[in-house]
Amino acid sequence: MYEDRIRRKDLMGKIMSAEEAAAMIKDGMIIGTSGFTPSGYPKAIPLALAKRVAEGEKIKISLYTGASVGDELDGALARAHAVSRRLPYQTNESMRKAINSGEVEYIDVHLSHVPQMLRYGFLGKMDFAIIEAVAITEEGNIVPSTSLGNSPTFVKAAERVMIEVNLSQPLSLEGMHDVYIPEDPPYRKPIPLVSVDDRIGTPYIECDPDKVAAIVITDIKDNVRPLAPIDDISRKISQNLIDFLSNEVKQGRLPENLLPLQSGVGSVANAVLGGLVESPFENLSFYSEVIQDSVFDLIDAGKMTRVSGTSITPSEEGLKRFYKNLDEYRKYIVLRPQEISNNPEVARRLGSIAMNTAIEVDITGNVNSTNISGRRMMNGIGGSGDFTRNAYLSIYTTPSVAKNGDISCIVPYVSHVDHTEHDVMVIITEFGVADLRNLSPRERAKVIINNCAHHDYRPMLMDYYERALKQGGDVHTPMLLNEALSWHIRLQETGSMKIK
Amino acid sequence: MYEDRIRRKDLMGKIMSAEEAAAMIKDGMIIGTSGFTPSGYPKAIPLALAKRVAEGEKIKISLYTGASVGDELDGALARAHAVSRRLPYQTNESMRKAINSGEVEYIDVHLSHVPQMLRYGFLGKMDFAIIEAVAITEEGNIVPSTSLGNSPTFVKAAERVMIEVNLSQPLSLEGMHDVYIPEDPPYRKPIPLVSVDDRIGTPYIECDPDKVAAIVITDIKDNVRPLAPIDDISRKISQNLIDFLSNEVKQGRLPENLLPLQSGVGSVANAVLGGLVESPFENLSFYSEVIQDSVFDLIDAGKMTRVSGTSITPSEEGLKRFYKNLDEYRKYIVLRPQEISNNPEVARRLGSIAMNTAIEVDITGNVNSTNISGRRMMNGIGGSGDFTRNAYLSIYTTPSVAKNGDISCIVPYVSHVDHTEHDVMVIITEFGVADLRNLSPRERAKVIINNCAHHDYRPMLMDYYERALKQGGDVHTPMLLNEALSWHIRLQETGSMKIK
Repeated sequence: MYEDRIRRKDLMGKIMSAEEAAAMIKDGMIIGTSGFTPSGYPKAIPLALAKRVAEGEKIKISLYTGASVGDELDGALARAHAVSRRLPYQTNESMRKAINSGEVEYIDVHLSHVPQMLRYGFLGKMDFAIIEAVAITEEGNIVPSTSLGNSPTFVKAAERVMIEVNLSQPLSLEGMHDVYIPEDPPYRKPIPLVSVDDRIGTPYIECDPDKVAAIVITDIKDNVRPLAPIDDISRKISQNLIDFLSNEVKQGRLPENLLPLQSGVGSVANAVLGGLVESPFENLSFYSEVIQDSVFDLIDAGKMTRVSGTSITPSEEGLKRFYKNLDEYRKYIVLRPQEISNNPEVARRLGSIAMNTAIEVDITGNVNSTNISGRRMMNGIGGSGDFTRNAYLSIYTTPSVAKNGDISCIVPYVSHVDHTEHDVMVIITEFGVADLRNLSPRERAKVIINNCAHHDYRPMLMDYYERALKQGGDVHTPMLLNEALSWHIRLQETGSMKIK
Repeated sequence: MYEDRIRRKDLMGKIMSAEEAAAMIKDGMIIGTSGFTPSGYPKAIPLALAKRVAEGEKIKISLYTGASVGDELDGALARAHAVSRRLPYQTNESMRKAINSGEVEYIDVHLSHVPQMLRYGFLGKMDFAIIEAVAITEEGNIVPSTSLGNSPTFVKAAERVMIEVNLSQPLSLEGMHDVYIPEDPPYRKPIPLVSVDDRIGTPYIECDPDKVAAIVITDIKDNVRPLAPIDDISRKISQNLIDFLSNEVKQGRLPENLLPLQSGVGSVANAVLGGLVESPFENLSFYSEVIQDSVFDLIDAGKMTRVSGTSITPSEEGLKRFYKNLDEYRKYIVLRPQEISNNPEVARRLGSIAMNTAIEVDITGNVNSTNISGRRMMNGIGGSGDFTRNAYLSIYTTPSVAKNGDISCIVPYVSHVDHTEHDVMVIITEFGVADLRNLSPRERAKVIINNCAHHDYRPMLMDYYERALKQGGDVHTPMLLNEALSWHIRLQETGSMKIK
């Protein structure tokens, strides 16, 4: 049994139930798992662990992953109160609640930083790596499934390794991955990747068979998330993006096939990227983290010919489509560790066009990607910082308003800064494009308010800006200290940023 | 005459007075100059231009430099009202005044970003590059003086070039420089630098002789700035830094000779670095922007053996010492373009220990490096972001208070964010060290307040923090919207952050 999946025969003896594997996990341990978005994360062992804890055993672990993961991991463990510390990213409702309630200490880290920080010894000693695999090779190496994330470094750094061989993940994923772990300073060399489709590593994760503590066979499918239907706002943002990029080509600032695109995760990001199917651009390339449905659309339309990511992150329909056409898609797609997919060195070298979404932006170009009203964690910074600062072009998209217009996504001053005025080149809403390159904060304010803000808030923003300019003394940055956060306070008190 | 300085004879005809050269500069032009700190910047032509404008001619230029420059350039032109746009950094009192008054639009850019943004076409078409040189080679190439900065790309990108041959700069500077300009995407290759002392380019700036519009002979010396005497606070910060680094070595997280050090510019940064002369560390290396007096101290003490920067930035005594011992120091020092000295790819590869200074930090680890009370530009972000985000260890130092204790440098919320909570690993004041690695915002707050804040402000900060935790609802980030900036408002209104 499982001969095609577990090719190293002396590991057969390590096959056990999820419950037996979970029993090795003790209170206080640091556990690192595969998974980046609800793709390629372990499911059976976390569910068994959550069950033990729900039944009364006292276990709190530190949970490190690639990024967000599925509910069987983040959700089940959070609801069992089995997590004390979490990094580097999450999108799960139960986990978010535990973080914001003060139960879980959450460290919101640039995704490319996690593996090297672990190797440098900054994140403690990892007890177990739990990795979802489609197979184990004859040498004992691990063939990952739908994501790579931090798995290579977790396997390398952990004391011991558990492997979930997931029979629902097709064996034909084998060969899509390209695993490369950089040396650490002072021995690090240049990452030898100069093109989106370069292969620089191995198609498996190296693993010392002696470190394997458990192999669990499962067939629980990736718990992928639906994509919201594409709405009119997303369509307008996408059209504004295409117009902007077209003009850049016309002005000679971008090649006709653009440069490698990066796109954030989620329905809006997917819709904005998907709009390129209707664009004039051909022979596009993609160097990003997550491969969502729109990438399949672009491949199918013949618009995109080279794709690199760390995770396949489709909707349920997208996952079926991916599995069905895997032999075709694998010609175009390389999956890399997030240390490489998100690497600043590579993003800057390739000339990434970084397109990420904002919770709110302010009139001088600062972006909040993480904390609602400064206090409540939404998801996390993810890879947006890895790409934004190192991009050829850094673009943030957001609808101009949220919550039926009660929240302006353009505010006087963001309540939390994840991307600074030094890093954000372009802001796009459904109203238009603010090109901030080579503009001072005073100049940016006018462009952002006039081109991007919703009409309901434009006069209020312009009034703030003009009074900030007039206030006595110096004013490189148009800011009124006593009003900067007043819109968020009004929202808290009245439910709306509008003045009633 | 000048045979040793101008070795290409057909360029002799381009020698003219500074006034004749300055006469070519017209209203609306974009001018790029050499210079990074008050080192290696052109002096005679800017002074002549300022004189013309002061005498009544209407000229406003966009002035691009490497970083800050001397008063003959920034000061004279600002006082003549001859500048409309300025990037990417400055420290000049007259220029600062013009920026904050609204006269000059100032774009505060990561220093490593400037040259590629110019080549990408994001900063307009440069009309003239004005470069200080010690010599012009037989091929017409330029041998720079005490800094490299953006000169290589400015010479490449500008329509025409003016060269100030400065006889006060010793010819023996020749050979210290290593000029490398990366290709642009999609053709960029890895930067082939793997060690602090690697040489990857040419000892001169390539220049098409046909582009040379003027050669001006001058002997005006670099207008270097004095260093403040080392005070007790700096000494304590330095000792705290040494203790922290020693423990990192002890814990096995750093090699015994550390990793390449980066240090910000200014008296405090110089003093903190200089403290390492008394440390147990040996065989240190330095990969940074500016080479201040303390680097000479470390070389002389036999503590530092490899040094890379983009500028020699000594005090007046330091400059004399540098010139006197140039033959010795040149064995240790390489000067690079700021695109390489500050390159994220290289900083991350080498494993930079980034040590920069803050104007203020807040209780969750955000750092303000630029805007006093959110509005008034001090200097600019400089290269701090290039290093901080890509460092092996990112450290910010600041005295706990300023202005005789009326300003706490640890505040509830910074009034401007240049380095986010995701980027700052360690904060050091004279009171102690806050090691923020792997801590959540709630945990960071306790460590920063208890280890780094001044006793006068500790209870106020702890009170804010505890009330932020108790305020209803979610609290991943301990913040009170209606009090976050109240300390800055109180300072504005009463002259002190203390409650009277």
